[in-house]
Amino acid sequence: MESDASPSSSPSSLSPPAVPMELHVRNREKLLKSLRQSLSDSGRPLHGFVFLQGGEEQARHDTDHTELFRQESYFAYLFGVTEPGFFGAIDIMSGNSLLFAPRLPSEYAVWLGEIKPLSFFEEKYMVNKVFYTDDIVKVLHELFQGQGKPSLFLLHGLNTDSNNFSKPAEFEGVENFATDLTTLHPILTECRVTKSDLELAVIQFANDISSEAHVEVMRKIKVGMKEYQLESTFLHHTYMYGGCRHCSYTCICATGGNSAVLHYGHAAAPNDRTLEDGDMALFDMGAEYHFYGSDITCSFPVNGKFTSDQSLIYNAVLQAHDAVIAATKPGVSWVDMHKLAEKTILQSLREGSIISGDLDHMMVERLGAAFMPHGLGHLLGIDTHDPGGYLQGLERPKEPGLSSLRTVRDLQEGMVITVEPGCYFIDALLVPAMESTKTSQFFNHDVIGRFRTFGGVRIESDVCVTATGCKNMTDVPRRTWEIEAVMAGAPWPPRLSPAHFES
Amino acid sequence: MESDASPSSSPSSLSPPAVPMELHVRNREKLLKSLRQSLSDSGRPLHGFVFLQGGEEQARHDTDHTELFRQESYFAYLFGVTEPGFFGAIDIMSGNSLLFAPRLPSEYAVWLGEIKPLSFFEEKYMVNKVFYTDDIVKVLHELFQGQGKPSLFLLHGLNTDSNNFSKPAEFEGVENFATDLTTLHPILTECRVTKSDLELAVIQFANDISSEAHVEVMRKIKVGMKEYQLESTFLHHTYMYGGCRHCSYTCICATGGNSAVLHYGHAAAPNDRTLEDGDMALFDMGAEYHFYGSDITCSFPVNGKFTSDQSLIYNAVLQAHDAVIAATKPGVSWVDMHKLAEKTILQSLREGSIISGDLDHMMVERLGAAFMPHGLGHLLGIDTHDPGGYLQGLERPKEPGLSSLRTVRDLQEGMVITVEPGCYFIDALLVPAMESTKTSQFFNHDVIGRFRTFGGVRIESDVCVTATGCKNMTDVPRRTWEIEAVMAGAPWPPRLSPAHFES
Repeated sequence: MESDASPSSSPSSLSPPAVPMELHVRNREKLLKSLRQSLSDSGRPLHGFVFLQGGEEQARHDTDHTELFRQESYFAYLFGVTEPGFFGAIDIMSGNSLLFAPRLPSEYAVWLGEIKPLSFFEEKYMVNKVFYTDDIVKVLHELFQGQGKPSLFLLHGLNTDSNNFSKPAEFEGVENFATDLTTLHPILTECRVTKSDLELAVIQFANDISSEAHVEVMRKIKVGMKEYQLESTFLHHTYMYGGCRHCSYTCICATGGNSAVLHYGHAAAPNDRTLEDGDMALFDMGAEYHFYGSDITCSFPVNGKFTSDQSLIYNAVLQAHDAVIAATKPGVSWVDMHKLAEKTILQSLREGSIISGDLDHMMVERLGAAFMPHGLGHLLGIDTHDPGGYLQGLERPKEPGLSSLRTVRDLQEGMVITVEPGCYFIDALLVPAMESTKTSQFFNHDVIGRFRTFGGVRIESDVCVTATGCKNMTDVPRRTWEIEAVMAGAPWPPRLSPAHFES
Repeated sequence: MESDASPSSSPSSLSPPAVPMELHVRNREKLLKSLRQSLSDSGRPLHGFVFLQGGEEQARHDTDHTELFRQESYFAYLFGVTEPGFFGAIDIMSGNSLLFAPRLPSEYAVWLGEIKPLSFFEEKYMVNKVFYTDDIVKVLHELFQGQGKPSLFLLHGLNTDSNNFSKPAEFEGVENFATDLTTLHPILTECRVTKSDLELAVIQFANDISSEAHVEVMRKIKVGMKEYQLESTFLHHTYMYGGCRHCSYTCICATGGNSAVLHYGHAAAPNDRTLEDGDMALFDMGAEYHFYGSDITCSFPVNGKFTSDQSLIYNAVLQAHDAVIAATKPGVSWVDMHKLAEKTILQSLREGSIISGDLDHMMVERLGAAFMPHGLGHLLGIDTHDPGGYLQGLERPKEPGLSSLRTVRDLQEGMVITVEPGCYFIDALLVPAMESTKTSQFFNHDVIGRFRTFGGVRIESDVCVTATGCKNMTDVPRRTWEIEAVMAGAPWPPRLSPAHFES
């Protein structure tokens, strides 16, 4: 569909794909298999219900201003429901899936839209039966085939990125059930850690449209613009051509010194700087499609031409990014990948005479964390920081840099993980490191002075671990010459011109 | 600033204005004057503190996904603070204003940005002094000049649009104060009801950029597009050229039958229909700038040409819109304005042979509510439904249509109120009305059948009540020929060409 008034060709080669609801059917089958195995292994009966509560619309403070609703992530994973106010159940014995829809008042038809019959949701969401939420107790008691109170497996567990606990389903009559708060969370979370082909296809689309939007931003950027104008450009491209109403996270559109602020872009640092000639830009932006996200960072010079210092830092990070992707495969430890990225960056900084000394010694003293304080990457899926990074009793490391890792797991086929090395010049970290008796020796104090206002570089791609290695799902210009060419108007992905074939 | 790659001229004539923080200084002075008067009138001592808590960032469910923060509205009104986690106080005796900023951990500098000194906020927000939130108890005790426990006037009261109560400030040590939960809310809410010139200038800018974006949407719309592509076009225009990161409310981009759903566009009805030839569009969208909102609805045919039936309904609503604006001035009852709109619409529908009979009789039977179930308009400001519609002991009417009014007040100079008559063909309302013994007689049943799938028309402008009348702050094409001309490429606002002057 051509829907842009631009006289040139459409700015997008993409259109939003239909997502088969079978994706969520398969997610439920995966959970059921895993849960039954666990119950069976521990000698427990194979009955009762997995029971989850979907999200509710939120009003802002005391007002009737309603934030645009986005489904709770575990509920989205199992049921794919976009509307607020639902509950969902999986009958462990029969394997049947049930949804409970809110009973809407007749005024809803006037204010909010057609009141759909229950059969509509049955078909839309490919579940066995849909009831009203006020029938939860009755329905589940009728369906239960065990003895005594029907058992409900509720979701309660720690999110290791937020340190918050998920809230188990709450409804009137919950006291008529035997509730289990511990079994479900680790099993369901582990299901989310590896992605099915259907899930991967959605994450790939989120990557495709976001990659294209990053390229659009590179083409539109000019000295004198405000950072938020590039955010607006990205958001517009992903919604207009990709149908992405939600972003995976608030856009980080950092230029100049702001590129050293890892989570820039929030309300207290709202992408409002004016772009200057000579700035580096660090744009960390990803669209979400049908609940699944993308998370992509591009770093490049605002004026379209890398200086030698910018190339030095950029290529240090790019080499780390490429080295990690080359090494990523099942069985590899993510901690080792983090260290590989650190070491690759330190090596480049040493070649650039910013630091000097023995690399292994630097690694022992954790010098890398002074330049890259964040973890190398995180699981990605329905949440940007997808859960499961510290399951199976894994403990968070204590060392600088490593302590920021959102997972320390060995990689498995089907995981989607971000590879996002960075190199930043942050006074709050560098000044102490340069003064420390342990690390002061490594710094070439006169050279590093040149970089104190540099900001930082991050390069972030989303990779899917395959049976033998990994696939980079992100497709943006990465070499310095590719970036300079695209910013000057060259096509992306690069195409061989017909003339080329003819010659 | 030219920041668009379009070969034609910039798509916007606007740029985001700087808003003087004096706006909030004046808001505080207004409150102080009103509160001192009230205390004095009731023989209470003129000391203690107005004390408000600003909003906090919200995480989504158990995750670390943070929604973009937008300040709580009362706090925004008094202090204009964009950052989360603040408290604010006004010393009733001295008139001094204080802010309490969160004490940020040193990691904040690495992850979220520079840690600003307190003096930064003092200057930015034009308050007398800024302290840390952990010093609230100490500071307020030191400053208090009365006897006994210092008194705090906290914000607690009903929002009559949401039926929610505002949450009084909570902090450690609140038990060391004498708290008053009833005095502040009605006085502060009443302050917000009439706008200062500085507030009006901001609302005017929100209207200007939103008006321009509506025109952009009219120009870009084509049969075959998705509704959300026009939402994206609007959002992009207001952010790209107006710096508006927030919208006043979720965009309603309703076409065809969806235009009869008053609050279409939310997650369960997400602007995802494909536009068809012959559709009417009803686009209700408004940007927010520096907390203050706009709320504008344009209705027009998707293909750019009104049919005679579309003109009939459109002009019925436009006449009501114009009649209300012509009659709006201080002292006029908003209930009377609502009835004027209803009567004007009914008259047009009678002229169009959709209904027949005596207009006064229709009014007695509340027939208008079958076509316009919502209220004529609402106060607008920092909230889209700005508070204060039912202050001073006013009661909500019981009659159909009137019961939806968000205010029944007499108009005052300085109020900003939306004028948004509509005419909808909603089965859930029309079928009962056509079957009712009281109203069946009015319907020309054969004619109305033609309109059953029409959807609806709403025309909404934001007007400011002046000393002698009102000013329409919204500037979009309203006459059918103006809309058709603009959709065909004519300039807006219409310009006399140089040739015209020369001839």
